[in-house]
Amino acid sequence: MPVFESVTVLGAGVLGAQIAFQTANHGIPVVSYDVGDDAIAAARHRLDAIVDQYVADSGREKRAAAEEALTRIRFSTDLAEAVSHAGLVIEAVPENVELKRSVYAQIAAAAPESTVFATNSSTLLPSAIADATGRPDRFLALHFANHIWRQNTAEIMGTPETDPAVYQRVVAFAVEIGMVPIQLHKEQPGYVLNSLLVPLLNAGAELVLKGVAEPETVDATWRIGTGAPLGPFQIFDVVGLRTAYAIASARPDEGSQAWAAYLKEHYLDQGKLGVESGEGFYRYR
Amino acid sequence: MPVFESVTVLGAGVLGAQIAFQTANHGIPVVSYDVGDDAIAAARHRLDAIVDQYVADSGREKRAAAEEALTRIRFSTDLAEAVSHAGLVIEAVPENVELKRSVYAQIAAAAPESTVFATNSSTLLPSAIADATGRPDRFLALHFANHIWRQNTAEIMGTPETDPAVYQRVVAFAVEIGMVPIQLHKEQPGYVLNSLLVPLLNAGAELVLKGVAEPETVDATWRIGTGAPLGPFQIFDVVGLRTAYAIASARPDEGSQAWAAYLKEHYLDQGKLGVESGEGFYRYR
Repeated sequence: MPVFESVTVLGAGVLGAQIAFQTANHGIPVVSYDVGDDAIAAARHRLDAIVDQYVADSGREKRAAAEEALTRIRFSTDLAEAVSHAGLVIEAVPENVELKRSVYAQIAAAAPESTVFATNSSTLLPSAIADATGRPDRFLALHFANHIWRQNTAEIMGTPETDPAVYQRVVAFAVEIGMVPIQLHKEQPGYVLNSLLVPLLNAGAELVLKGVAEPETVDATWRIGTGAPLGPFQIFDVVGLRTAYAIASARPDEGSQAWAAYLKEHYLDQGKLGVESGEGFYRYR
Repeated sequence: MPVFESVTVLGAGVLGAQIAFQTANHGIPVVSYDVGDDAIAAARHRLDAIVDQYVADSGREKRAAAEEALTRIRFSTDLAEAVSHAGLVIEAVPENVELKRSVYAQIAAAAPESTVFATNSSTLLPSAIADATGRPDRFLALHFANHIWRQNTAEIMGTPETDPAVYQRVVAFAVEIGMVPIQLHKEQPGYVLNSLLVPLLNAGAELVLKGVAEPETVDATWRIGTGAPLGPFQIFDVVGLRTAYAIASARPDEGSQAWAAYLKEHYLDQGKLGVESGEGFYRYR
């Protein structure tokens, strides 16, 4: 018997769709909620593309099971109905604290008392939302990375109010759907991965801004020196330069502002957005 | 004809011996200087071990050439004589600015006018030594990493006084001995690699010190999230916890002091020094 017999994923964007697929692909029924028929139509296309990408990564023999997994995903545009039988709700709606709080207020009334709520938020701490859930002891963060089946970390972070037994059930769920559970004992902005990655990327940006070395040189040094497959600027290109710009421009310090201006002038204004646009610090294809 | 027809390496410690081997293994005659007969005897043993390690990494068919390379290394305990015919002197003596300045003052008088001097210092900027060389235009930093044939970066960093033509000759030399030249356009403490690595290691240390997650968890997150072979604490073990302690304890900020104290209490005081002692954050063999 699975840890949670039914899982509802709120939001069928890039990551929401991947979470729905990963869960269904491990045998668990999923309700995928989004705001309207257009969003659901987009989600169906996205899931087909996810299956193709998953099969490309994992082997053709995985296609039949992956397509069968899609049959375990039911779509809904009715928020109260979507959560009415959920054991676990994973919230992956846009990163807006007021929007999230409003969604939690609605599902708090509609979901069973026992339902566990988890936010996939990358940028908000769960304690910023906990009181809106009406069940802070059954609420925590469960954070996935893009390419969920390949970068298969699930960062699990409670608030001081999260019931330890609930936390452990979510750890067990993460394992059940093929994730490596990354257990955080305290709230930490950026969780573990971004707490490590951001200082590395900032250090690379600083070397280039100061004119110490070119991006290619910085990346080659990192790859050779540490054996990593990608240097900081290759990672910037994967993350996307619009995201890098948004993060840098939101920070008040001089270095971040200078980096944001550099990205805008040399990359964004020239349509160079990273891998997604075919060119960033490097050219692709 | 090689860029420099003869190379003298000052200091036959861990890295000095590797530099001598790497240079000789690319066909260039080397003079290996150290302070006395005991140091030279140790250097001979070290070079034999280097050949074994190199062959283990590179394949048995490389042994004959590697052993022949050793015949191109001549040992000397006479500093003036060691540099008297050198095209390039690579200084790899202990990281003490007064010692280095004294060595440069001696070789400035003994080496030909045209000889280029390069320091392998990890922790000093070349501008802190340049005036002692008597030839600041023919002086720069040429920084190698441990396991020189595998982590084959050569970070090349001049001072504002370094002649660009000399800089480019040293770049060409680095390529000639099988290195990837990492060209820094300005002086930068820690060069490129440590400018990236130190912030990553500090971020990992902070997560553990704050009690957010265990070292194994941090490392797993980094490996899965970035595809890197080693997480921060695996790197700490390779670098050696005494070195990590020395660096942290020399810094005045509270976080570094707390990390130094943590390393001392939980690792150094228990003989856990990292890979070198068989145990650090992890156990080895």
